[in-house]
Amino acid sequence: MMGNKKPWGGRFSKQSAAWIDSFGASISFDQEMAHEDLEGSLAHAQMLKKTGIISPADAEQIIAGLKEIEHDLKAGKVTFDVQLEDIHMNIETLLTQKIGPVAGKLHTARSRNDQVATDLHLYLKHRLPEINAALLELQEVLVQKAQQHVTTIMPGYTHLQHAQPISYAHYLLAYYQMFSRDRERFEFNLQHTDINPLGAAALAGTTFPIERAYTSKLLGFSKTYSNSLDAVSDRDFVLEFLNNASILMVHLSRFCEEIILWCSYEFGYLELDDSFSTGSSIMPQKKNPDMAELIRGKSGRIFGHLLGLLTTMKGLPLAYNKDLQEDKEGVFDTVKTIIPTLKIFTGMLKTLKVNTAKMEQATTHDLSNATEFADYLASKGLPFREAHRVVGELVLKCIAEKRNLQDLTPAEMQAVSPLIANDIYAKLTSKEAVARRNSFGGTGFSQIKKQLAQARAELASNSPKN
Amino acid sequence: MMGNKKPWGGRFSKQSAAWIDSFGASISFDQEMAHEDLEGSLAHAQMLKKTGIISPADAEQIIAGLKEIEHDLKAGKVTFDVQLEDIHMNIETLLTQKIGPVAGKLHTARSRNDQVATDLHLYLKHRLPEINAALLELQEVLVQKAQQHVTTIMPGYTHLQHAQPISYAHYLLAYYQMFSRDRERFEFNLQHTDINPLGAAALAGTTFPIERAYTSKLLGFSKTYSNSLDAVSDRDFVLEFLNNASILMVHLSRFCEEIILWCSYEFGYLELDDSFSTGSSIMPQKKNPDMAELIRGKSGRIFGHLLGLLTTMKGLPLAYNKDLQEDKEGVFDTVKTIIPTLKIFTGMLKTLKVNTAKMEQATTHDLSNATEFADYLASKGLPFREAHRVVGELVLKCIAEKRNLQDLTPAEMQAVSPLIANDIYAKLTSKEAVARRNSFGGTGFSQIKKQLAQARAELASNSPKN
Amino acid sequence: MMGNKKPWGGRFSKQSAAWIDSFGASISFDQEMAHEDLEGSLAHAQMLKKTGIISPADAEQIIAGLKEIEHDLKAGKVTFDVQLEDIHMNIETLLTQKIGPVAGKLHTARSRNDQVATDLHLYLKHRLPEINAALLELQEVLVQKAQQHVTTIMPGYTHLQHAQPISYAHYLLAYYQMFSRDRERFEFNLQHTDINPLGAAALAGTTFPIERAYTSKLLGFSKTYSNSLDAVSDRDFVLEFLNNASILMVHLSRFCEEIILWCSYEFGYLELDDSFSTGSSIMPQKKNPDMAELIRGKSGRIFGHLLGLLTTMKGLPLAYNKDLQEDKEGVFDTVKTIIPTLKIFTGMLKTLKVNTAKMEQATTHDLSNATEFADYLASKGLPFREAHRVVGELVLKCIAEKRNLQDLTPAEMQAVSPLIANDIYAKLTSKEAVARRNSFGGTGFSQIKKQLAQARAELASNSPKN
Amino acid sequence: MMGNKKPWGGRFSKQSAAWIDSFGASISFDQEMAHEDLEGSLAHAQMLKKTGIISPADAEQIIAGLKEIEHDLKAGKVTFDVQLEDIHMNIETLLTQKIGPVAGKLHTARSRNDQVATDLHLYLKHRLPEINAALLELQEVLVQKAQQHVTTIMPGYTHLQHAQPISYAHYLLAYYQMFSRDRERFEFNLQHTDINPLGAAALAGTTFPIERAYTSKLLGFSKTYSNSLDAVSDRDFVLEFLNNASILMVHLSRFCEEIILWCSYEFGYLELDDSFSTGSSIMPQKKNPDMAELIRGKSGRIFGHLLGLLTTMKGLPLAYNKDLQEDKEGVFDTVKTIIPTLKIFTGMLKTLKVNTAKMEQATTHDLSNATEFADYLASKGLPFREAHRVVGELVLKCIAEKRNLQDLTPAEMQAVSPLIANDIYAKLTSKEAVARRNSFGGTGFSQIKKQLAQARAELASNSPKN
Repeated sequence: MMGNKKPWGGRFSKQSAAWIDSFGASISFDQEMAHEDLEGSLAHAQMLKKTGIISPADAEQIIAGLKEIEHDLKAGKVTFDVQLEDIHMNIETLLTQKIGPVAGKLHTARSRNDQVATDLHLYLKHRLPEINAALLELQEVLVQKAQQHVTTIMPGYTHLQHAQPISYAHYLLAYYQMFSRDRERFEFNLQHTDINPLGAAALAGTTFPIERAYTSKLLGFSKTYSNSLDAVSDRDFVLEFLNNASILMVHLSRFCEEIILWCSYEFGYLELDDSFSTGSSIMPQKKNPDMAELIRGKSGRIFGHLLGLLTTMKGLPLAYNKDLQEDKEGVFDTVKTIIPTLKIFTGMLKTLKVNTAKMEQATTHDLSNATEFADYLASKGLPFREAHRVVGELVLKCIAEKRNLQDLTPAEMQAVSPLIANDIYAKLTSKEAVARRNSFGGTGFSQIKKQLAQARAELASNSPKN
Repeated sequence: MMGNKKPWGGRFSKQSAAWIDSFGASISFDQEMAHEDLEGSLAHAQMLKKTGIISPADAEQIIAGLKEIEHDLKAGKVTFDVQLEDIHMNIETLLTQKIGPVAGKLHTARSRNDQVATDLHLYLKHRLPEINAALLELQEVLVQKAQQHVTTIMPGYTHLQHAQPISYAHYLLAYYQMFSRDRERFEFNLQHTDINPLGAAALAGTTFPIERAYTSKLLGFSKTYSNSLDAVSDRDFVLEFLNNASILMVHLSRFCEEIILWCSYEFGYLELDDSFSTGSSIMPQKKNPDMAELIRGKSGRIFGHLLGLLTTMKGLPLAYNKDLQEDKEGVFDTVKTIIPTLKIFTGMLKTLKVNTAKMEQATTHDLSNATEFADYLASKGLPFREAHRVVGELVLKCIAEKRNLQDLTPAEMQAVSPLIANDIYAKLTSKEAVARRNSFGGTGFSQIKKQLAQARAELASNSPKN
Repeated sequence: MMGNKKPWGGRFSKQSAAWIDSFGASISFDQEMAHEDLEGSLAHAQMLKKTGIISPADAEQIIAGLKEIEHDLKAGKVTFDVQLEDIHMNIETLLTQKIGPVAGKLHTARSRNDQVATDLHLYLKHRLPEINAALLELQEVLVQKAQQHVTTIMPGYTHLQHAQPISYAHYLLAYYQMFSRDRERFEFNLQHTDINPLGAAALAGTTFPIERAYTSKLLGFSKTYSNSLDAVSDRDFVLEFLNNASILMVHLSRFCEEIILWCSYEFGYLELDDSFSTGSSIMPQKKNPDMAELIRGKSGRIFGHLLGLLTTMKGLPLAYNKDLQEDKEGVFDTVKTIIPTLKIFTGMLKTLKVNTAKMEQATTHDLSNATEFADYLASKGLPFREAHRVVGELVLKCIAEKRNLQDLTPAEMQAVSPLIANDIYAKLTSKEAVARRNSFGGTGFSQIKKQLAQARAELASNSPKN
Repeated sequence: MMGNKKPWGGRFSKQSAAWIDSFGASISFDQEMAHEDLEGSLAHAQMLKKTGIISPADAEQIIAGLKEIEHDLKAGKVTFDVQLEDIHMNIETLLTQKIGPVAGKLHTARSRNDQVATDLHLYLKHRLPEINAALLELQEVLVQKAQQHVTTIMPGYTHLQHAQPISYAHYLLAYYQMFSRDRERFEFNLQHTDINPLGAAALAGTTFPIERAYTSKLLGFSKTYSNSLDAVSDRDFVLEFLNNASILMVHLSRFCEEIILWCSYEFGYLELDDSFSTGSSIMPQKKNPDMAELIRGKSGRIFGHLLGLLTTMKGLPLAYNKDLQEDKEGVFDTVKTIIPTLKIFTGMLKTLKVNTAKMEQATTHDLSNATEFADYLASKGLPFREAHRVVGELVLKCIAEKRNLQDLTPAEMQAVSPLIANDIYAKLTSKEAVARRNSFGGTGFSQIKKQLAQARAELASNSPKN
């Protein structure tokens, strides 16, 4: 017979050109899931054996062959062929080379549609805990650093203007909270990832007496898709993942932005370790926060993957369409971006030098004790709005005369409000201002200690040893 | 005093022009949260009273004033002023007009930063259950329709080509599954929404002895933010919402695409009720699936809101920045898009006419029983790959001769494989093909009944009466 | 006759519910194009008259009626009805109320498909020159400020680290260049906007002897679409616009980021005028760069509109689909965002106070003259790479000893390279460093003057008076 | 010397770990620009020689070394080292290996900032004409096919409902118009790409007496950036490119959607050549329009690259930041996606079988001659709205009785309007309906011939031979 030599080529009278095949082929990237594909095939073969769909002897041959390929793969002895389109056909062909035509029995009662879905579920199911482990490591470092810096005073910013003095530990723990939510999101994501599509076949299930619960058990899936059309066309778990990665990048890019700012000549609050900075090819004095910039810049890439897949999925009729092949590269790139990003970020944070003196010094001449002053007046019974206005006047005076609120004389103060007494001065130091913000979740030192205790407890309960 | 008359204007010596104020003002859209703003202020006032931060008499005045404003608002008697920037300053000003300068005490121990965060949390906390209720209604209709159509046979598609015959109920239940995941996502979203930021003040907490647990209780929040910086700068819950809405739109746009296809002259499987279609201003014969197209088109809008906020958040230093004002319009528009979308979609589905005869007829001359044929050979011991090839040959013959597999003679069949016997014919009807795909989650009738039973149980347990 | 009372309702036997109509209706936003719709209808009526498709008497009645509506509209006397779906049906109904059933002749030889496309083309054709005028105003201010600041020295940054000293004028003129490209893009955009779709009718043209060139002339369009399917389904000009607006927002957000940084306590290089800043409801000392933050934040919104429409357009079959209704709100919002943004930004820049002393001072102790030093050595014949290494050593010494390069003694310098002579000291002042970077396009003063001359010439040739 | 061995490492006392270097390195992807980097370096070396900045002997050595590397590169003999970060440092190191320390003189008067910008400008300047050549080839095929199908009648669609019959050639020429605009956009894009940044150095120009006009001439650039800060930080040309590619993908995805629909069992208007289709691993009868689906799906990827870079650029301070390293992968992937996509698409179109009989047959029983009927009445003086209503009634009758308009008797017609005479029947055939839509740009045959003539003239003037 002339015609098409592809494994699916029976009904075709012509072969497509190599360059066309190569455009449609996914092997250049889906080989990333080679282990998952073998894992899925092994489970499928065992199920075919258990249910008697294929004979024990055939099954054993197939299983042995697959294990051999797994072994070759780990030894780096496998090369893939773009003419075989994808990882599934490549592995099936390798199997045929090893065990002959009986290899063709492996594809009984399944389709590439459920096979590729299974691979992708397995791939992400394996990666999500790795990501959360990296997040936990980062959180450990945050807590360590926070413990060292409970009483390190720095300017708290809103609108990049000095707002009120805060503790550097409090600042670090804000990020701790964000990363906790990130972990929660990836854990939730796991629920929609940890479902087995294998056995949905092309779209409608199969007439063979398969046992999907058995492959679910072998593959460690908690659940099995209960609708076969949904099983092969669902990519919700991927969209969730890309969104969770995007939110994580929002957090990291915010942190990086601050690191970049604070490492500038003008701020000078932080200094990166040499091992996390680079120099310039032309300017010998430069020390650039390259890693922080790169991480900030990589947020665009991840958002792009999310929006790319949303666009690809939009308006696709059920069940499988070739458009879905576009679901993988973005995921692989996202995994390969965020895991090293977390590790780099953790290392960067661990080795960061904090210029505590400069930080604290910045809080003493910036009028950021104005809220203290207004609160003082409000606590003496002045409506807050009026207190705010009164202190605004003193601030204007200080700016004009280049002075600070704590440098005003009692007389100057009382000129704007008779409620002001000498006890105001004690309230105006930034350390005091921090210490006294002891409302729940506030920057007051005792509150920070509570946050730290809670964080340590959380980390302990999430530690891999548990 | 010359200068700025804004509530925060003490330190300013100039007033900005009206057109500039109007650019920065958010009142045109944040009035959407007027009720939530009042709700938050009421709780704050009660807390100020309970803790003695303001006197009971002052607190009572404030509370009475706020309730009066709430009453006016419901009666449509309130107009907002763009010169007062936002909903918070508008309401405070209304309060001052009602009760005089004591109104200024309401803002003790809080800032607009925690106030606006509280409003947005409350707003979304109220809307998420509405969305899930609308989803449940849609799922009810899906289940009703599925029950009526268990044995309605239609072509199952992959690549928009006939793949294998399926049950229309099976198709409907695939969407049931997607909407269940949507509900789960919105429920998870609620966990990160249901946290109280009130009392975080500007960014650092406050020196006043506030009781945040008390406002949490009054406002029905399950948790209280434990880091004040995080409380005012966190928009994760909004990003989660926009992503969940985007995934929902992916599902709806896929369904709509199919409705549009199936209502076409060429498919003719469905007919929309007149009440969910429109005509043409020029072509008298037209009946357009406008609603389905519009819903499909609206996916772009929602993805756009998600990207917009991701972009806005990217690289923002802590804590509050004015950029965050851009977080609201996208959320409001998303809520106002998806709730009516769900209702329209539900109505459209409820009134849809299904042309069951045409659907089933399409499965009889499309060679979509070829998998049956290959499975038959595989079950007789031929490796599946070889069975696939053999049937491919018969398919090619059928196409050339414009015949169907079931019309081939036993001799013609046996010419390609001696394994084929007369029992093949019984397998080749589409109803039989559907009935026999009884693997777990498959389209076989008994499997569909299991899916239906499970769906009914789920809906019962989620029903609002429970 | 029972049934549907819509203008297209002849073939319908049922009326849709009001809430469904309202979901599909566009009148809430497409009234933005009311003037354009009238303009298009007037031209169409005149053409119908000229060609004799309708009688002169009928045409005159229609024209008079349309002019009356235009008059009413300007006088604010028109209210629109959501039951009439869109601006087209609203205006046709108003016309019928004014002149009776002869109004029905206006829709001869056209469809809403070409009508709405015409409106949108006209709308954007009117707005693009407004945007470019606002850009020119901003560029005027940039040039004025640059002229004042040719010799204002500031740190030039890469990686937010001090790189080399530059002139503030040079910095401003970099943005001048970006805005020139923005104008070029909007001008190119006009070419694809300035094409007339009227007369394409529903999708295929019409059998009536219309004269499209005549309506093009009346409406001021330079070209007429030469394919009717393309005419009604093309939205390239809108996508171009949203992309151009997005790139503009990239430029503005970069500039705003720098304004925000430079207004911070730590940088202190710029001070915003009170009229372009706001205060805090809680912190009396705050002066926030709200406008710059808001503009930076609004980039997300515009990117979102771009993505939204790309998504909506993706995969839409020809010719018109209801999805296309989603093309408008994003455009209107973009126009309403970027025009005021440009005006605000221009005003902000015009009134910005530049702290020239602080800027220059920052360039004297930052080692940013290291490149000068390396260039000096390279010009004496040392390979640049080696020069770079040598200066790196001196830099390391300076950092360790908290000194500057210009403070090192000749002996200290010669210890690392005998090529260094006393003429090095003259090269190490920042003013000298700026002055000497006189390569084409460099920050050297004479180069800046060339840039300024060229900019003034460009602005003169683009001035509206020309 | 202890410390950092990087070419910029003079001031660093520590070396970063290999895994950190690898995260920051770009050599894995920027080797794509190896030829452009050599091209730029060669021009730079020649300029350094011409201006006497380095000696003729040194320059000759460098030039010879660079040419040798170019030769090695073409011969596939070059391997790159991730420890050397990027393509620039890799090539400089190769040069040093070849010619010794004199290689270090090449980097005189330039920086990696202007070098990488130059490479990217050159890269895209080379690719844009390739893309336009591929677009022209596609347009050639469209014109050829259109010439063959002037009188092929098919249903014209709006809302995926039959609207009015059209010519298939008219349909093809609608896409011709879109691709013409695509070419215009890429040509405009070239203007902002064809500008030379070399010589901008790090950000501020250089003190060496370079001649930028000379390198511009050597590299074939039409213009030279006139502001050095802009030169190194501008990525407008890349954003334009990604947007133009996105709009191109919108066009291709629309075309592919229609190919997919029309290849379905239900439509059956087109059949793909076997060489552009694939089969199924499980269903022997399947012939899938994989290429069309894949192209449709790839639109998401390209939109993602656009939005990724917009996000990355947003809010970046001048001049160079490491974030900008993220500008490349998206561009390279876009180039590698759209060029083969265009070629595949062209091949697919060229070999597509058109089922003209089925297309025309579909226009005869679909009531799509209703507009003809309404136009007929309007031309007899009935206001179009009234004509529309009258025909709507006949349509309703036809639907109820499963008849066509042309099958109604004169009496039945006259019952709804006495204006109808026997000459109506001649107007109701679909060929006549197409032929008579002869308004400019309409589907009438003589109009199509005009479009074809214009298209042929355009293609001739754009042909590479000119």
